[in-house]
Amino acid sequence: MPRIDLGAIEQTNRTGYPMPWAAEMSGRLYRRLAEAAGITDFGVSHVTLEPGGISSQRHWHEGEDEFVVILSGEAVLVEEGGEAVMRAGDCAAFPKGAPNGHHLVNRSGGDCVFIAVGKVAMSDCHYPDIDLHLDGATGGYTRKDGTPY
Amino acid sequence: MPRIDLGAIEQTNRTGYPMPWAAEMSGRLYRRLAEAAGITDFGVSHVTLEPGGISSQRHWHEGEDEFVVILSGEAVLVEEGGEAVMRAGDCAAFPKGAPNGHHLVNRSGGDCVFIAVGKVAMSDCHYPDIDLHLDGATGGYTRKDGTPY
Repeated sequence: MPRIDLGAIEQTNRTGYPMPWAAEMSGRLYRRLAEAAGITDFGVSHVTLEPGGISSQRHWHEGEDEFVVILSGEAVLVEEGGEAVMRAGDCAAFPKGAPNGHHLVNRSGGDCVFIAVGKVAMSDCHYPDIDLHLDGATGGYTRKDGTPY
Repeated sequence: MPRIDLGAIEQTNRTGYPMPWAAEMSGRLYRRLAEAAGITDFGVSHVTLEPGGISSQRHWHEGEDEFVVILSGEAVLVEEGGEAVMRAGDCAAFPKGAPNGHHLVNRSGGDCVFIAVGKVAMSDCHYPDIDLHLDGATGGYTRKDGTPY
């Protein structure tokens, strides 16, 4: 059945970020739905942000569009232009190449669940707030000056 | 702001289906979010199915994956393998090339709102229940024997 059994898909809070940036990701629990469901045109993550959790370090991708829709709870969308509270049914899109670092922060007392759609990052990703850079060519994280962690 | 103002995006029940299949689509109101938000890697539709509405004629794509997540209300997912009620937070995925015709039918007394993600159909699309075929090469609808409507 194409209806996805979420409970049958591993939920994890793994992250590829190096320390210390990885430590802030413990409250982001996600399931990779696309691979589990056999689709490859785009990725889909089902994410639960616990209170205090962040969806990612604030970032923007040079080459990949992103879309999010909130399913339940609320989170604050933080970006260059300011902040906006997002609740169930609210949507946001982040066009590739727009230098507008963004992430969701759960400042509420309950979980926030959302769906994120995007492609696997094959381009550089920029982190305006922290000394971190994703090199699209290697898929590896470095400091902004290119030196390794 | 990347947060999408749904009210600023045209909502329509237009369809490319020929008659008589178009007539059944009047209860499907949708907004095209991706174009409005400036993303192109995939399409995103915000759909309101009124009571009695169907998301599409039951179909499957040879070359495009699809993903849906229910935001509110409920609808019945109808596919080859049977039926499943889907409610807020439920997700389904339809891998390209899998000959499993599917659509959502709103048999409830209230609206059902969902998000659908996919790419523009560039391949043939099959409609197992009705005498309709989408020719991916031309983007046009024909009868199953190839004759025009």
